[in-house]
Amino acid sequence: MIANIAVYRDGAKLKVEAQPDDLEANYKAVKAGQTGDFVSVGLHEPDADEMDRVAKTFGLHRLAVEDALHPVQRPKLEKYGDMVFLVVRTLWYVEESDTVDSGQIALFLGHDYVVTVRQGAEFELATVRERLEGQTDVLKQGPAAVVYAVTDRIVDIYEEVGGHLEDDVDDVKAQVFAPGRSNASKQIYELKNEVATMARAIKPLRDPMQQFAKADIDGVTKDAAPFFRDVADHLTRVNEKIDALDNLLSSAFNANLSRIGVQQNDDMRRMSAWAAIAAAITVLAGIYGMNFTNMPELQWRFGYLVCLLVMTGASVVLYLKFKKSGWL
Amino acid sequence: MIANIAVYRDGAKLKVEAQPDDLEANYKAVKAGQTGDFVSVGLHEPDADEMDRVAKTFGLHRLAVEDALHPVQRPKLEKYGDMVFLVVRTLWYVEESDTVDSGQIALFLGHDYVVTVRQGAEFELATVRERLEGQTDVLKQGPAAVVYAVTDRIVDIYEEVGGHLEDDVDDVKAQVFAPGRSNASKQIYELKNEVATMARAIKPLRDPMQQFAKADIDGVTKDAAPFFRDVADHLTRVNEKIDALDNLLSSAFNANLSRIGVQQNDDMRRMSAWAAIAAAITVLAGIYGMNFTNMPELQWRFGYLVCLLVMTGASVVLYLKFKKSGWL
Amino acid sequence: MIANIAVYRDGAKLKVEAQPDDLEANYKAVKAGQTGDFVSVGLHEPDADEMDRVAKTFGLHRLAVEDALHPVQRPKLEKYGDMVFLVVRTLWYVEESDTVDSGQIALFLGHDYVVTVRQGAEFELATVRERLEGQTDVLKQGPAAVVYAVTDRIVDIYEEVGGHLEDDVDDVKAQVFAPGRSNASKQIYELKNEVATMARAIKPLRDPMQQFAKADIDGVTKDAAPFFRDVADHLTRVNEKIDALDNLLSSAFNANLSRIGVQQNDDMRRMSAWAAIAAAITVLAGIYGMNFTNMPELQWRFGYLVCLLVMTGASVVLYLKFKKSGWL
Amino acid sequence: MIANIAVYRDGAKLKVEAQPDDLEANYKAVKAGQTGDFVSVGLHEPDADEMDRVAKTFGLHRLAVEDALHPVQRPKLEKYGDMVFLVVRTLWYVEESDTVDSGQIALFLGHDYVVTVRQGAEFELATVRERLEGQTDVLKQGPAAVVYAVTDRIVDIYEEVGGHLEDDVDDVKAQVFAPGRSNASKQIYELKNEVATMARAIKPLRDPMQQFAKADIDGVTKDAAPFFRDVADHLTRVNEKIDALDNLLSSAFNANLSRIGVQQNDDMRRMSAWAAIAAAITVLAGIYGMNFTNMPELQWRFGYLVCLLVMTGASVVLYLKFKKSGWL
Amino acid sequence: MIANIAVYRDGAKLKVEAQPDDLEANYKAVKAGQTGDFVSVGLHEPDADEMDRVAKTFGLHRLAVEDALHPVQRPKLEKYGDMVFLVVRTLWYVEESDTVDSGQIALFLGHDYVVTVRQGAEFELATVRERLEGQTDVLKQGPAAVVYAVTDRIVDIYEEVGGHLEDDVDDVKAQVFAPGRSNASKQIYELKNEVATMARAIKPLRDPMQQFAKADIDGVTKDAAPFFRDVADHLTRVNEKIDALDNLLSSAFNANLSRIGVQQNDDMRRMSAWAAIAAAITVLAGIYGMNFTNMPELQWRFGYLVCLLVMTGASVVLYLKFKKSGWL
Repeated sequence: MIANIAVYRDGAKLKVEAQPDDLEANYKAVKAGQTGDFVSVGLHEPDADEMDRVAKTFGLHRLAVEDALHPVQRPKLEKYGDMVFLVVRTLWYVEESDTVDSGQIALFLGHDYVVTVRQGAEFELATVRERLEGQTDVLKQGPAAVVYAVTDRIVDIYEEVGGHLEDDVDDVKAQVFAPGRSNASKQIYELKNEVATMARAIKPLRDPMQQFAKADIDGVTKDAAPFFRDVADHLTRVNEKIDALDNLLSSAFNANLSRIGVQQNDDMRRMSAWAAIAAAITVLAGIYGMNFTNMPELQWRFGYLVCLLVMTGASVVLYLKFKKSGWL
Repeated sequence: MIANIAVYRDGAKLKVEAQPDDLEANYKAVKAGQTGDFVSVGLHEPDADEMDRVAKTFGLHRLAVEDALHPVQRPKLEKYGDMVFLVVRTLWYVEESDTVDSGQIALFLGHDYVVTVRQGAEFELATVRERLEGQTDVLKQGPAAVVYAVTDRIVDIYEEVGGHLEDDVDDVKAQVFAPGRSNASKQIYELKNEVATMARAIKPLRDPMQQFAKADIDGVTKDAAPFFRDVADHLTRVNEKIDALDNLLSSAFNANLSRIGVQQNDDMRRMSAWAAIAAAITVLAGIYGMNFTNMPELQWRFGYLVCLLVMTGASVVLYLKFKKSGWL
Repeated sequence: MIANIAVYRDGAKLKVEAQPDDLEANYKAVKAGQTGDFVSVGLHEPDADEMDRVAKTFGLHRLAVEDALHPVQRPKLEKYGDMVFLVVRTLWYVEESDTVDSGQIALFLGHDYVVTVRQGAEFELATVRERLEGQTDVLKQGPAAVVYAVTDRIVDIYEEVGGHLEDDVDDVKAQVFAPGRSNASKQIYELKNEVATMARAIKPLRDPMQQFAKADIDGVTKDAAPFFRDVADHLTRVNEKIDALDNLLSSAFNANLSRIGVQQNDDMRRMSAWAAIAAAITVLAGIYGMNFTNMPELQWRFGYLVCLLVMTGASVVLYLKFKKSGWL
Repeated sequence: MIANIAVYRDGAKLKVEAQPDDLEANYKAVKAGQTGDFVSVGLHEPDADEMDRVAKTFGLHRLAVEDALHPVQRPKLEKYGDMVFLVVRTLWYVEESDTVDSGQIALFLGHDYVVTVRQGAEFELATVRERLEGQTDVLKQGPAAVVYAVTDRIVDIYEEVGGHLEDDVDDVKAQVFAPGRSNASKQIYELKNEVATMARAIKPLRDPMQQFAKADIDGVTKDAAPFFRDVADHLTRVNEKIDALDNLLSSAFNANLSRIGVQQNDDMRRMSAWAAIAAAITVLAGIYGMNFTNMPELQWRFGYLVCLLVMTGASVVLYLKFKKSGWL
Repeated sequence: MIANIAVYRDGAKLKVEAQPDDLEANYKAVKAGQTGDFVSVGLHEPDADEMDRVAKTFGLHRLAVEDALHPVQRPKLEKYGDMVFLVVRTLWYVEESDTVDSGQIALFLGHDYVVTVRQGAEFELATVRERLEGQTDVLKQGPAAVVYAVTDRIVDIYEEVGGHLEDDVDDVKAQVFAPGRSNASKQIYELKNEVATMARAIKPLRDPMQQFAKADIDGVTKDAAPFFRDVADHLTRVNEKIDALDNLLSSAFNANLSRIGVQQNDDMRRMSAWAAIAAAITVLAGIYGMNFTNMPELQWRFGYLVCLLVMTGASVVLYLKFKKSGWL
């Protein structure tokens, strides 16, 4: 679906005569216009025909087009002649399942056009566009401005998702060190997996963003570079956070193992303490259950009572002793 | 065995007068033809004589020929004068044993010839060739087109095998977190080994593919480079997946250890609970087994009945208590 | 808040006619003065208006200004035209909670001005300034001298905080190897987290400091470089200490796990020893509780006494034996 | 001991007038001969005098000579003016103790001489020399041919030793996953040590071999380079195998720990099952050991028999239940 | 304390008219002498005044002087104009506590002077100097010769200390795999710490020594380089040993954990075996302690005897069975 076509000049949207959804006519207007004019085309999960039409209009390379249509690419930056092709991954956090899901945005960047192909829901390019149209100084930078706007928003979302994962790691930590009995290893395992998924989306993007930040890319001016440097910087920050979370999760595995061992020990000691109390009574009962003819205590009037008292006393003494030493 | 000989011109198969299996005549036709003509020779587990004949025809280096005949090489790219020698490993997943098996394809790439020497079954070069002959734009790139077709197919297979391993890791995960009793450490160990085997086939290939992707190789044109970049890109992707699987397996080891500890604790608590119930009865029986003369309860008419009821009652109370606290 | 404005010439404070808090007038005095004069402006958590005024006066870049106002940046060095922008993180150790807290100082470095924007409490720029004004040879180096003075002090504080963490690691170690019963895994986990927090503040600063140390930065002279090299050197040292602490904490996790296992074993053996003593008495009592008609011992006059003595004797022997073998 | 002196010209051994063991005379013959003639001298654990004589003849550097005499060097490549000095380590597998032992070969490579100094037994330079004299195309490459022959053989031996270690790792794996009771941690520890020993001999050699492979060394021609590349390639292969073994051993440690936990659990459950059976009988016996006056069952004619049957029945039922649930 | 002042010319000590402890006069003699003359000054824990005098005489940089006085620097190489400043750490093994202690030597290297400032005991510069004065070929290399002599000796000591740690690791290994009961985790932890301390002294020195070895330093001639390469080489060797020790210690942690698990299991099985024997007797005694009227065995003449024999027999049979299966 062609979601949007717009022509920009000098940092502002240009009214052109072409129909708003007539791709070729809009691009013709740009070519006939001033230097610096460019058209921005936004596609959302286009079918093969739409993509084909766009590819023909701007002369996009077959392999890049294929990548844009298959939403399983890793982030990358490729140059095809004058055209720059950037793939980034969108991420979003699914509250229901505490998992991280991902989509893809492919950007084709020429000197007078920029095409965005989005795969997967959950990323509002429209609001990104609106915000960009309010920043004249950015929009003046030409088609690269659209790349900036998209990656800036994506990295913001990375930080949000990273925040969610941070919360989940805190939950796991709380669980590992909570007094109750539980085994957090499944949560830790799943979180490690989520963190790894996120890392796979983020890490390969660092290099491309660095190239933009250094203005190593055609169409990125010295003035535009600081904006990309800002994005690259945030990317590094979220990346460091992700690495830190992964390390914390490894520590959590260790702590969880310790906890299980301690739990086992606690339970064993509690059980042993009760067993000791029972054993004390049993030993006494065993002794007075013996059949010796000459056992004076047995004939005592209050022998039984005394015996019961001794049993109770021993139990209480043991109980208190175990309580004090922490076994109970 | 010489599996196939074909001469190509301008992206299409060329009918030459030479017999289809006459190596020297076919190559003579190429030499007598236009610039850009090339012969593609496919060998499958050739014997020394066949290999020798091919080596003489194209002037292949002794060491490269030896490597092509011994199917235990690691992936590599070597230059012998004008000739480029590439070794890649084929992989396939053996369903019966859940293991990864591997073979080898060696490619000799000259400016007017390309020789493929396959060792090991399970890789259909014929279908690769057919597919390639349908892609004129690729085939036009000369002998390198055959390298592209082979490596493209191989990396596709890597992704398939990676998918199988991913399924196996999911199985292991399910086993580790399943409620039943089991020790998944053997499966984790074996899978780690399979993943490592696969990594050894894949990782050393990245560098050679990058060189092709950068057109650093004689005979690879700027137009051909994007195709190799596509292969290199998929290779990186499958490589990242493999690394992720290895990390997950390490986590699975940790989770498995936790699980064993938890299992131990669960069993111990269950056992302790039953022991406690038996102990309660035994203590009571012990007391009324004592031989004191003066034990009024013993003379009570329903003393025994009451005692049995108390025993039953204590057991039920303990049972319910343990049930509630999760020990049973 | 504008905390301080001062104009320096030739390594000493210059009396200017401008009001001490009149930013623009002070800067005008610098511009009208000699080459090498510079103004140093110190801000503490400025509001948007103050920051705006400063930004306009010195022509600071919008993105850098934003970063200075948001105290969550990672340490970095960025060049905006002639201006150099440095972000460093302040750290301090909170005794009450044994945690590491952090703030931020952003420095804007021009050829005739230096602006420091501090976020967060706990760092006394005033004393840094006083100390700097006493070091003429440093202050002569121009605005970079302020950068040196700030980073030098910050790295000193890093070493102090590192010392605190080192003490905490020693405490944890003492706890892990102390004879009493305890599980240090929570402390280890928390400390790992603190160490990681500190590492995130320190590691990214190494690169910027290296650039200052190599005089790769406009406004840093060859004479100033050794001072920054000194700072970079201390930074490396504290960084190595941090890495060492992290490794020690990993070892502590391992040792803690061993300890828990050993504790479990000790407790089980103690419990088993007592159980064995009880069992010995119970066995004997059981035997003489049997109802055989013909059990001569039962009729013996001192049978009961002998039996009690045997029971006591067996208990003492067992007790001593277990004591000797370390089970009790 | 001077084990061998030989003069080569054009890929073949040259008959010279000098005595076969007269070092100086042989070298004089080379100097008086054609360009490309060279003398190869083989020493086995020479004493200081022999080494001194050789050093004087060829003008070897004092430090290199010292290294050749002390068989504890790490592999390295050093240039002393025109002379190239290479140290490699020989390895061999000692069947009796399942350990890897090591010696050293030092090579002095000049443009018209090559000196080999071997320390330690177990490496037959003689057979290497014979094989080399049969390969005219290699021997033509001058003194470097001897370096190739030695390193080629050494790397072959590395692969053999690696194969032995691989077998040992397989044994350990079999032990870890065998049904019987055993603790493989000692074997794993020892094997890790052996693998590390081997890695220390192999890893530092990769760089030197790469330099030979790139013909970065005086006296190594473009034609000789592919031979060294072949050696370097095998070295990389055996290095990767060694790394893989080390990783497997780490996994084996993990699996061993799991196994011990599982074993503990199995034993505990078996013991608990038998305890439960004994407890069932004891409870019953305890009840009928009570002394209540009114216990009708005690008077029954077959009360005792029924009681015994119930005891047996309960035991059988419990036994079968535990058998079924895998506790016995 | 100024420990020594000496003037050297052409590889030998020069008699000068100046008093042996008159720093300035000695240096004047060097300046008035031939090119290549140099003065060597050795200080041991100088006070501020002495250091100040030396600094003034040779024009040493304030920051370098400060570092020389504070013995907590990490090894480093710094250039201040013509002067080269090297800091190395001395190590020694304290037998009493099995720990590694460390001091510092700072070297100021000019074209006609070299100043050594030692902090900490336990390093005999005097013997180093004597040995150096015996090696004319080394001493001829100028002031760098002193650097060589000091670093050569220091690295020798590193190897000795490394040997001590290796012995300690062997002790720990013996303890982990010894039959007795012990928990080596404290020793492993401490040793890991010692190894890390040593690594922190050694690793940062590699880079400086490589620069000397490549004659990248003013005052180090091509002829002197091999000597430094020798030192750098030994440093690499001791560094590899240290890394290997650290890895072994990690394995020892793993093996120790396994051992504790196995120990636990052994103890549990032994205890269970004895419990089983006691249970067998108790069950029997319980049965014959029942009060059924009709229990024929009780009336048998030798019932009691038979019963005792059965009890003994069962115990012996169980004992032997447990012995055979390794539980006892």
